Amino acid sequence: MASASTGSRVSCGRDLNCVPEIADTLSAVAKLGFDFLCMPLFHPRFRREYELEPAKSRPGAQTRSDLLLCGRDWNTLIVGKLSPWIDADSEIETERRNSEAALAQELNFSAYLGLPVFMIPLKGLSNANLARVLLNHIHTGHHTSNFWIRVPLMASEDMREDLTENEPISCTDDTSVDEKTWSWWNSFRTLCDYNKRISVDIGPDMPSDTVIDKWLGEPIKAAILPTSIFLTNKKGFPVLSKAHQRIIFRLFKLEAQFIFTGTSRHTDKDFRSYLQYLEYLNQNRPAPNAYELFAKGYEDYLQSPLQPLMDNLESQTYEVFEKDPIKYSQYQQAVYKCLLDRVPEEQKDTNVQVLMVLGAGRGPLVNASLRAARQADRRLRVYAVEKNPNAVVTLENWRFEEWGDQVTVVSCDMREWAAPEKADIIVSELLGSFGDNELSPECLDGAQGHFSTPNDGVSIPCSYTSYLAPLSSSKLYNEVRGCRERDKDPESHFETPYVVRLHNFHQLADPKPCFTFTHPSTDMNNNRYQCLRFTVGCNSVLHGFAGYFETTLYKDVTLSKSADPDPFVLWPILFFIHQDDDVTVRFWRCNNGKKVWYEWAVTEPSCSAIHNPLLLDVWRDTLATVNHFTSNTFTDEGKTAKSGCTDLKKKKHFKDWCYTLCV
Amino acid sequence: MASASTGSRVSCGRDLNCVPEIADTLSAVAKLGFDFLCMPLFHPRFRREYELEPAKSRPGAQTRSDLLLCGRDWNTLIVGKLSPWIDADSEIETERRNSEAALAQELNFSAYLGLPVFMIPLKGLSNANLARVLLNHIHTGHHTSNFWIRVPLMASEDMREDLTENEPISCTDDTSVDEKTWSWWNSFRTLCDYNKRISVDIGPDMPSDTVIDKWLGEPIKAAILPTSIFLTNKKGFPVLSKAHQRIIFRLFKLEAQFIFTGTSRHTDKDFRSYLQYLEYLNQNRPAPNAYELFAKGYEDYLQSPLQPLMDNLESQTYEVFEKDPIKYSQYQQAVYKCLLDRVPEEQKDTNVQVLMVLGAGRGPLVNASLRAARQADRRLRVYAVEKNPNAVVTLENWRFEEWGDQVTVVSCDMREWAAPEKADIIVSELLGSFGDNELSPECLDGAQGHFSTPNDGVSIPCSYTSYLAPLSSSKLYNEVRGCRERDKDPESHFETPYVVRLHNFHQLADPKPCFTFTHPSTDMNNNRYQCLRFTVGCNSVLHGFAGYFETTLYKDVTLSKSADPDPFVLWPILFFIHQDDDVTVRFWRCNNGKKVWYEWAVTEPSCSAIHNPLLLDVWRDTLATVNHFTSNTFTDEGKTAKSGCTDLKKKKHFKDWCYTLCV
Repeated sequence: MASASTGSRVSCGRDLNCVPEIADTLSAVAKLGFDFLCMPLFHPRFRREYELEPAKSRPGAQTRSDLLLCGRDWNTLIVGKLSPWIDADSEIETERRNSEAALAQELNFSAYLGLPVFMIPLKGLSNANLARVLLNHIHTGHHTSNFWIRVPLMASEDMREDLTENEPISCTDDTSVDEKTWSWWNSFRTLCDYNKRISVDIGPDMPSDTVIDKWLGEPIKAAILPTSIFLTNKKGFPVLSKAHQRIIFRLFKLEAQFIFTGTSRHTDKDFRSYLQYLEYLNQNRPAPNAYELFAKGYEDYLQSPLQPLMDNLESQTYEVFEKDPIKYSQYQQAVYKCLLDRVPEEQKDTNVQVLMVLGAGRGPLVNASLRAARQADRRLRVYAVEKNPNAVVTLENWRFEEWGDQVTVVSCDMREWAAPEKADIIVSELLGSFGDNELSPECLDGAQGHFSTPNDGVSIPCSYTSYLAPLSSSKLYNEVRGCRERDKDPESHFETPYVVRLHNFHQLADPKPCFTFTHPSTDMNNNRYQCLRFTVGCNSVLHGFAGYFETTLYKDVTLSKSADPDPFVLWPILFFIHQDDDVTVRFWRCNNGKKVWYEWAVTEPSCSAIHNPLLLDVWRDTLATVNHFTSNTFTDEGKTAKSGCTDLKKKKHFKDWCYTLCV
Repeated sequence: MASASTGSRVSCGRDLNCVPEIADTLSAVAKLGFDFLCMPLFHPRFRREYELEPAKSRPGAQTRSDLLLCGRDWNTLIVGKLSPWIDADSEIETERRNSEAALAQELNFSAYLGLPVFMIPLKGLSNANLARVLLNHIHTGHHTSNFWIRVPLMASEDMREDLTENEPISCTDDTSVDEKTWSWWNSFRTLCDYNKRISVDIGPDMPSDTVIDKWLGEPIKAAILPTSIFLTNKKGFPVLSKAHQRIIFRLFKLEAQFIFTGTSRHTDKDFRSYLQYLEYLNQNRPAPNAYELFAKGYEDYLQSPLQPLMDNLESQTYEVFEKDPIKYSQYQQAVYKCLLDRVPEEQKDTNVQVLMVLGAGRGPLVNASLRAARQADRRLRVYAVEKNPNAVVTLENWRFEEWGDQVTVVSCDMREWAAPEKADIIVSELLGSFGDNELSPECLDGAQGHFSTPNDGVSIPCSYTSYLAPLSSSKLYNEVRGCRERDKDPESHFETPYVVRLHNFHQLADPKPCFTFTHPSTDMNNNRYQCLRFTVGCNSVLHGFAGYFETTLYKDVTLSKSADPDPFVLWPILFFIHQDDDVTVRFWRCNNGKKVWYEWAVTEPSCSAIHNPLLLDVWRDTLATVNHFTSNTFTDEGKTAKSGCTDLKKKKHFKDWCYTLCV
């Protein structure tokens, strides 16, 4: 069942509705190359009537013995299927209670066998009772199995038969129908309070891209592949249509497993040929771009945004960002054009431009600037200002081995630095994944003092704009809910931004511009307020907003961290909100002279609370935690390990939701 | 660094004190077959005087650039070593403050490089300030590296030189000296509040078994192997003495890593020969017995004791216990002897003994009894009583395919069963890892009613005794501390028994008998009180008590779950207590007619609180949770998923510390 982890190979299962002899069937299915077998636990024709004779007191075993397979096989190779006749939400009292009894019996027996997964089909919109029994089962006992909820992508009149017989359902483009089955799942998942052990198993037919889009925000663990959707190529082998291939490729990315159902339609060929074709598609899936490769393993992984002002970055973090192939050539291009504009040809030997790199890190911007100077044949005097003493070791080594005297390394916080001379050009890369969230505006406003006159100096970048887009991802929503910490408001994790490589998600509308900043600037007020309206096409759940940004380095030289980003960009940020449907969202960027933070609220279709309001009384703690990061922590004799520990908790807490001011 | 996970191969590192050129040295060391390199981060002769000129304002880089290796290499192949001159606990003020500054600088730089491990040597008993600085460092920032505290197993006058020069220290048997260095570690680890990221790195010499014993309760991550302790075999290759080999084998079991220090003493041989010899020992380590194989992966893994009365066991749990090769042959032997005693030869065809298996599970005791009957050539009528409806499916299948009418399967809780006739023999396996902890006494007392007359019937087992032994294991102590749950008293996890395969531990004295029960019995009072005195030889930390048991099945047929158990026994139980030195412990087995539970307290050398006292007001909740496990949970319309969830929390909580009564 562990395809996700084992990686490259696709994990495939065989779906059967009748298994007369289990051990032989299992080995036969395994010999064909399947990874697991989906089968009913009780005989399809064995209906139990708990409250009526004779079934009530029927003697003998209710189903076959667990001794027919060893425990390991039950635990790893068998996916149980709920008996199709069970209808826990039947209108008929006796049938409902019978179904409840049978449902509980099958759930318990599946747990007893230690099956990795138990499959439950949805047959309509009303599943409240099914959800309740399942949830009670999950919350009692110590079993660990997961549950795949089988949802047809197309509703049809004779759904029930189709599902039990595993007949494919003819593909239709009637979206209202698609909506219907998705809302079956949505209401069921909501009733189950987004339980992590419940995921979805789509099929039996593969619908249009537009329908799949809707599902890409859902936790899809498996997809049904009826043999009937396969075409036949010249050599008589089963193949899929281009449309189906596109969908398969997208499911590959979600590491979904595939379940083959139905009998072979290519009787002259071995059933293996179906798997071989799927594996062929897997081997020939569109190659991941550099960005996907880089992000490998980080998909949907929630991280707190970097706060380089508060924390010292680690060597590897620098290394990752320095790998960006586009960013620094753009910076070089920007400095190059800027130098040509500022220094006429005839002054190239006399006019030495003073360039300050604020936040030099391990030196990539210094190197880009020096390259630009050589390219433009202009002269530079560079100041590399960096507050991280560890990175300064790297800068000093650069200077000693390469740069020489044209570069002055300043081991100092740019906020405290007294520059020996005025700057012509200030180069910085202080932008976070939401543009200004790492306080670039405040830092650069402060740095303007280094210019002889504000309107003479050039800041690279000279402007940047953040963007927002509404987003649906129950996967990430669940991740955030999972973040709950001891002695912390369980909701607090919805008040905080995250940095994450979006993967299992569905963007509900195109991004819209939010906040813009320019440098140098005469307006020192960096507070902002923006109201954005998004029209969400389809009926779905809004879990948050993805934040991006674009920046102009110099004139026409720009960088973009858009929804489909370049390699090695920062992750988009998510803001989590509980809301539905079309939305108006209001974003504030606030500043009380001590801290900078965002607040946000959804006001349409209905009002949310304002998220992340500032509590003034925590200010002193925040200062404390900042001190906690200065190199003289250890001279603070009074502090015991325990108090250090509490400080950390506090720090984390504030990190969550506001940025310490740095001007 | 991940030897523990990668398994079979031993992970070895090379320890160097001077690395002029890092990249070449690393590849050379790798080429020799080492997995990692231990080296200083700052030049050994580079002492920093932060508060004195000229060092105070010395220009240039303080150490080499991180660009000399890629991030991955720093993260996986390099173990940093603290500069040996640093003494954060120096009596001399300036040296102390200097050392603090240098210590913090090296810790920060190690975190910046993302090293997996940083090594810190202990040079004496006084390390309070070192501990404080280290702990503050661990509690600030987001670095994840671990810390190996290098502790010499033998203290010696010129320890400091020995450590810095990595010269071996001559092996002595002066235990007081051994005590000394262990107490260095003990006080340091206590100051660091047992922080999980701090483990110990023993060496440089390998001492006697007795010394190692003391250390086996400690989190040993690495051991130093000086080339000087190697002898030379006939062919001129390095080998170790038998004594050293024994110690190496024990360190293998803890999955310790080995660090080679010192220059080659076998200059005509490649340095590889040292590693090859260690790997040879690894390949030829004493083969694990069936029990160790079975326990593989479960070492030191804390589990809640099974409560078969409250929970239905899973198929795999039965499968594991049924694998026990000795247990059931002993039961067969017991039934065999019992039948011969009860049925004289001339009655063998007329006298049909009635044998009841109470808690038949999947049938192993039924099969053992039938085998015994055939072996004794006597006749049996068997009742297999089992309350787990899932296991009854297995029993029914056995009956249908093998047993036939001589066995009656009773799907019923033995507590409610109305037997159709009187029993001659009652066979059960209701014993937990602490003997009576699964309420065997109460169950069997109740079952005595099935006998025609108490003194006529035979119970197999007829008696059992629990044993206790004091125990030291900081590993397990930490595990339990880690169990803290939200809205639960952080200490509550020390009030509960665990089932665990003891591995990284040190038993401080031999087990002593605690409670004894016999069946059938005229004394229905199963409350017990026992006071046990243990004399602990060496100065060490008592973390808890290991519980075992022995049982007499019939006459001379016994089963023993002693400290070094047969294959496939249940794990010993641990009771955690915060205490030191020699101990008197008092154990109670209590019963208020509703629940059965243990209480315990240490009264010497000083008094602990009484652990696990009963709170009467939770009784109704306990009942509720029991109901929660009956098969008709799902008919309880009123209950919502949420309440189901809270019930579970409650259940867990009670499971922790008392057993529901079953008579």
